[in-house]
Amino acid sequence: MTETLLGQYRERIRTELDRVVDFWLKYSHDKEHGGFFTCLGKDGKVYDELKYVWLQGRQVWMYSRLYRTMERFHKPEILEAAKSGAAFLQKFARVPASGGSGKCAFCLTRDGRAVKVQRTVFSECFYVMAMDELSRITQDKEMQADAESMMDQLIFWVRTDPSGLGRPQLPGDLPVNSMAVPMMLLCLVDQLTEGRTDVVEKYKDLSGWCVERILQHIQRDGKAILESVTLDGKELPGCQGRLQNPGHALEAGWFLLQYALTKGDVQLQKTAVDKFMEIPFHTGWDKQHGGLFYFLDVDGHCPTQLEWNMKLWWPHCEALIAYLMAYSHIRENVLLDRFKLIYDYTFRHFSDEKHGEWFGYLSRQGEVVLDFKGGPFKGFFHVPRCLYMCEKLLDGLLEKQDS
Amino acid sequence: MTETLLGQYRERIRTELDRVVDFWLKYSHDKEHGGFFTCLGKDGKVYDELKYVWLQGRQVWMYSRLYRTMERFHKPEILEAAKSGAAFLQKFARVPASGGSGKCAFCLTRDGRAVKVQRTVFSECFYVMAMDELSRITQDKEMQADAESMMDQLIFWVRTDPSGLGRPQLPGDLPVNSMAVPMMLLCLVDQLTEGRTDVVEKYKDLSGWCVERILQHIQRDGKAILESVTLDGKELPGCQGRLQNPGHALEAGWFLLQYALTKGDVQLQKTAVDKFMEIPFHTGWDKQHGGLFYFLDVDGHCPTQLEWNMKLWWPHCEALIAYLMAYSHIRENVLLDRFKLIYDYTFRHFSDEKHGEWFGYLSRQGEVVLDFKGGPFKGFFHVPRCLYMCEKLLDGLLEKQDS
Repeated sequence: MTETLLGQYRERIRTELDRVVDFWLKYSHDKEHGGFFTCLGKDGKVYDELKYVWLQGRQVWMYSRLYRTMERFHKPEILEAAKSGAAFLQKFARVPASGGSGKCAFCLTRDGRAVKVQRTVFSECFYVMAMDELSRITQDKEMQADAESMMDQLIFWVRTDPSGLGRPQLPGDLPVNSMAVPMMLLCLVDQLTEGRTDVVEKYKDLSGWCVERILQHIQRDGKAILESVTLDGKELPGCQGRLQNPGHALEAGWFLLQYALTKGDVQLQKTAVDKFMEIPFHTGWDKQHGGLFYFLDVDGHCPTQLEWNMKLWWPHCEALIAYLMAYSHIRENVLLDRFKLIYDYTFRHFSDEKHGEWFGYLSRQGEVVLDFKGGPFKGFFHVPRCLYMCEKLLDGLLEKQDS
Repeated sequence: MTETLLGQYRERIRTELDRVVDFWLKYSHDKEHGGFFTCLGKDGKVYDELKYVWLQGRQVWMYSRLYRTMERFHKPEILEAAKSGAAFLQKFARVPASGGSGKCAFCLTRDGRAVKVQRTVFSECFYVMAMDELSRITQDKEMQADAESMMDQLIFWVRTDPSGLGRPQLPGDLPVNSMAVPMMLLCLVDQLTEGRTDVVEKYKDLSGWCVERILQHIQRDGKAILESVTLDGKELPGCQGRLQNPGHALEAGWFLLQYALTKGDVQLQKTAVDKFMEIPFHTGWDKQHGGLFYFLDVDGHCPTQLEWNMKLWWPHCEALIAYLMAYSHIRENVLLDRFKLIYDYTFRHFSDEKHGEWFGYLSRQGEVVLDFKGGPFKGFFHVPRCLYMCEKLLDGLLEKQDS
């Protein structure tokens, strides 16, 4: 019974992944300047030529990962696309005015001129992911070294001195432990250490630090996951302190679970599921209309983010990975039930049967409010990563069932 | 018939203004640190203590304007509140690290420490409005000089050298004529020159520049008002170039009309109404659910702003002022009809009969999505300014009917 269902899931997910890859292969490549268009309308048409660096890096990573680890995507066309994106990033992502520090732009013109720089480390994070993953295929040592030196730079900004990011120090702006930073760094450690036992040692301290920082977000006597806390793990005042981002907590959940599994840390596995999956599901799931809210206030105030009650594609992607990974290892039916519920909502509401790919932004009631397939924050990443991870997890589950 | 209706409008608007003023007098004053809380829940309860500088300045301005020009608000309590807000701003708004340039923070802690600085001129604009208006009551020459020197500084940033604002120059980030800047400066000229014939000359060149810059936003053969254009009035590429913000265009419309009336410029009066009121009304009004959209793309693409289809309070406030001002001077029934339509939508959807004040953020369908009365961008400004302006305009209209 469960096996049949899991088989059906795998079939649908596999088909969906093929369609999503086809969509981006067909519409997003800039054959003139290299790199990828990411502002794609519902039918794939480019509606803006700006190139967002996060999304360039993510697309290079995803193509490379698919090429490297899934036989049916081991195609020259995909490798060439990944190389084109990486070349574009290596040529243009770094902002020349940053004095050689490696600070990357957030957004570039079609031909690679910097439009905007964020005073955070995320452009650099996706740069590292891209270069590391592609260099695993090409065995390009220079590219691997490029990834490592960018990693060293961003660790310096995060852990030693953030002044190079350009944010002025203000007396009322206390340093904050934002979930995104340790999460992203833990993800990078996982990326850089895969299959390299010699590198594990180098990042051992960093991964411990990341886990500690992530766990600090468990607040309110273990009953809430808060998006931002103080550097010593206390609750911040006001809206910022009360903010919950269920999708982010769920993503942190599967990052933690994955880490805990490699370490064989049973206690951390339990924390990942009980705290970073069950809490955001219970607080974040909209009992009235289904779907995960984008933001919530832990005390029930109205969040000040205008989009707080919208249903975005990526929290649902992360929730699917989280619950399928949890079920794969813990095999409790309640975890599979959660996966089913989220799967049904997600495939019914986000997937576009007509033109392929997924819509990204729904109203609370589940209607499509923004109908593009790619935009400044939606590229070739959360959807294919989710489908890829879920297909792999289902392969594993069905294999075990067979044996 | 029309007179009866106008009388009913005035009655409702007057009552509403009283209620709104009462709400802020009752809930927003920080008696310990001075200044105003602006994050107020639906029942007036403070849900965040941060003090947003735009909103501090706007509240000082609004209190002062009401005190100075409307007899029933000529109360010590209101003057004292304005003074408290101005003192808070003078003491804390300027960022010490800006090297004495006068750069103001965007957001302060309750006790006045800078939390965030925007690299724009708007905090400074509202600072000028606040100090000029209050000094007209108190005859405080130093405060008036403070307003004027801040005005000089911000004109320098806008027209001569923006580098003091701290935005790095990037090769792909071309300078843009954003509607907000010339609009805001025209509003400030109106503020500073009121009743001061000697000052008119000083800002004559600036007001001409503002009008020219605003008119550059008329695009597509006179059929569209675009929010951002190049410095020489051409359309920008991509989403940025195609963006329409109907509420902003309507606000620019009444700023322009007001200016054209003082100048006796009949052609500009017509442009203000035909271009900056009729176009945004026709493109921005939601024929299905009523209300003005927040953002639209002139070519019909989906805007990338997640809140594009929401109905916000302030575009409706600006539309009410615009159409009532236009009707007052041009007396065409179609203008009054527009006012009626917007009035009915606005009072039915935004005004909170239970707790007073207005909701600010509705879904496309008109349901309240964010239920607070004050937030990071909603303070004591658009609602009372709209009610104040409309009451004055209705006074004028009914006076003329009487005579």
